[in-house]
Amino acid sequence: MFFSKRSLLAISFFTFTSFALQAKAQSSFGDQVVNTNITAQEVEAAQKAWGEALIKISKDHKKDGVKKASRTAEAVLDQAYGYNMGAVLFKPTLTTGDQVFRTTKEGALAYFVGGNKKFPNDSGFALKGWEKYEFKNAAVFINGDLALTMGNVFLTDGSGKVTKVDKTWGFKKDDKGQLRIVLHHSSLPYAP
Amino acid sequence: MFFSKRSLLAISFFTFTSFALQAKAQSSFGDQVVNTNITAQEVEAAQKAWGEALIKISKDHKKDGVKKASRTAEAVLDQAYGYNMGAVLFKPTLTTGDQVFRTTKEGALAYFVGGNKKFPNDSGFALKGWEKYEFKNAAVFINGDLALTMGNVFLTDGSGKVTKVDKTWGFKKDDKGQLRIVLHHSSLPYAP
Amino acid sequence: MFFSKRSLLAISFFTFTSFALQAKAQSSFGDQVVNTNITAQEVEAAQKAWGEALIKISKDHKKDGVKKASRTAEAVLDQAYGYNMGAVLFKPTLTTGDQVFRTTKEGALAYFVGGNKKFPNDSGFALKGWEKYEFKNAAVFINGDLALTMGNVFLTDGSGKVTKVDKTWGFKKDDKGQLRIVLHHSSLPYAP
Amino acid sequence: MFFSKRSLLAISFFTFTSFALQAKAQSSFGDQVVNTNITAQEVEAAQKAWGEALIKISKDHKKDGVKKASRTAEAVLDQAYGYNMGAVLFKPTLTTGDQVFRTTKEGALAYFVGGNKKFPNDSGFALKGWEKYEFKNAAVFINGDLALTMGNVFLTDGSGKVTKVDKTWGFKKDDKGQLRIVLHHSSLPYAP
Repeated sequence: MFFSKRSLLAISFFTFTSFALQAKAQSSFGDQVVNTNITAQEVEAAQKAWGEALIKISKDHKKDGVKKASRTAEAVLDQAYGYNMGAVLFKPTLTTGDQVFRTTKEGALAYFVGGNKKFPNDSGFALKGWEKYEFKNAAVFINGDLALTMGNVFLTDGSGKVTKVDKTWGFKKDDKGQLRIVLHHSSLPYAP
Repeated sequence: MFFSKRSLLAISFFTFTSFALQAKAQSSFGDQVVNTNITAQEVEAAQKAWGEALIKISKDHKKDGVKKASRTAEAVLDQAYGYNMGAVLFKPTLTTGDQVFRTTKEGALAYFVGGNKKFPNDSGFALKGWEKYEFKNAAVFINGDLALTMGNVFLTDGSGKVTKVDKTWGFKKDDKGQLRIVLHHSSLPYAP
Repeated sequence: MFFSKRSLLAISFFTFTSFALQAKAQSSFGDQVVNTNITAQEVEAAQKAWGEALIKISKDHKKDGVKKASRTAEAVLDQAYGYNMGAVLFKPTLTTGDQVFRTTKEGALAYFVGGNKKFPNDSGFALKGWEKYEFKNAAVFINGDLALTMGNVFLTDGSGKVTKVDKTWGFKKDDKGQLRIVLHHSSLPYAP
Repeated sequence: MFFSKRSLLAISFFTFTSFALQAKAQSSFGDQVVNTNITAQEVEAAQKAWGEALIKISKDHKKDGVKKASRTAEAVLDQAYGYNMGAVLFKPTLTTGDQVFRTTKEGALAYFVGGNKKFPNDSGFALKGWEKYEFKNAAVFINGDLALTMGNVFLTDGSGKVTKVDKTWGFKKDDKGQLRIVLHHSSLPYAP
């Protein structure tokens, strides 16, 4: 099997409330409720899971090297992004030229961990020794099983340096109740 | 103006929670939440509003005659059904032959209050002196701004006679937060 | 393995267009399109698949007996109904008393093939020798990945006898592009 | 009345296919189709309408001054953005500090035409003499009545200077078939 038990730890961040649990709402419907909608609470949990995953990749890199970090990153992409559905609308913070948009899983993986000759400018964003994350949400738009968020993300590295980005995410709740990122636009603040 | 103040009372049953109020969920998004999804509570309120409206039409008929009842019924159809969007999937309890499905507002109004030569078999279901309603929901399916319910409805007339029907409804929440019936299948219980 | 190759034939009716194929729409997006929406064409295909499945169960029953028919019926329920999500809003044509609504897979299977002591009045609707089906749709309501249909279904048995029912369906397209019945209200026409 | 006939021309760009017209799909449902879903074609039309509106504001500014441009911009915000629903997730290209996100209509208007003391850094993005627009879409994600697009937008001013931005939009189709921008993240390309 490809993933070791340890690398699967990365995945455990991405477990969300199942449909069954949601059904316990108190109403005249009792437990006979199927509800496919996404909630603000699920969205916040998914944001935190993204932050945890980024730090996990950085830690794996520091402790066990880039191969381990790559496996963790790939598990994160498989579980928390929507590449299983097709193109993901992903504009990472630091991409340039013809490779700004990473609509494929390969392109996203290259951005996070580098080492792919097809994406020569990628140095591995998730390998930069991230130790802490913080979110400051501006607003959320919830529409069926899809939620959009916009706000700031603050990432702190081992030296204490904080990177601030303007971040937009689109999360879609899949059939299993798992939230997947189908949209991700990250940009450095405008400096006049 | 077409509606008298009195007939507008019928309409007041159909006021639901606005988007603004929904937005007060406690989360990192504060009050910056737009949520277009329908909830089980809104669906129950819409079911009750349907029951109240049916009784209102019956009362208006008894007190003020069929013209008043017709105006109330039309207001109900305008506010609580989705004919403004196009065809409504409406199979009333007692329709027959080529006129089983009432996909137009005209056909629905004829069913509720009769008196339309194009629908000669309609005697006016809402004019039958209904005084009480009760719901026994079997289940609900919630998907975005649309909710489906299935269960029994019990209607009691002035003589105390109870009519039981198997009832399926589809409610869609519109841009103003108003729930509208886009699907309504009603049938008498199967008698072997 | 539980299903023989032959019983899997029943399943092949339920293969629908994948997201990938849908993506070929001609637009400025090229093939970079993810579209989770359901189409009228997919709904019609799912209706036909339901008709084919019913006839398949009847044929399996005639040729290989009730056990084979049961396995086929269970495969149909697993693939074409939404019991994997929770309660299905299913009101079959001929159910009575406390067992009108079949929100569980067990209840649905009992209705189609009988033989379950918990559902003593079920004689097996799908075992009645159905040979032909015909649909006459009244209208469709399409909302995201969910579509609602209403109309008549005509079923013909081996003696040429035609049974007409008023039928409402709700189809939800799942993550794999498979349409699943989440709502099914069937009733005999009202006879004054 | 507030808007002159001329300023209403700006609005005419934002007229989209109605539900009624959509219903003409060829199927067994005939014209009895209600379909609330958004299409790739509608999204492309809405993108073009945004480009036309930006140029219209610039032209109005040049010809009739900032007051006229403001009225046009306000009409665009009223018709083509979702501020009527509540917060819009809007991160304009050139905003800074505490005023990066413009979740209110007032903040959006200030960005486009300036002149609001509460937003002192806004010089009026739409007043910069834009004469031409071009889109290069990377991908689209369609989910019910909501569509997300990502790609580049190229804007050319009167001197021929081209500004390129990375652009993400979320469009929601409202009850009248009008597409409204509920998400708009615009950022200058990353320069290492």
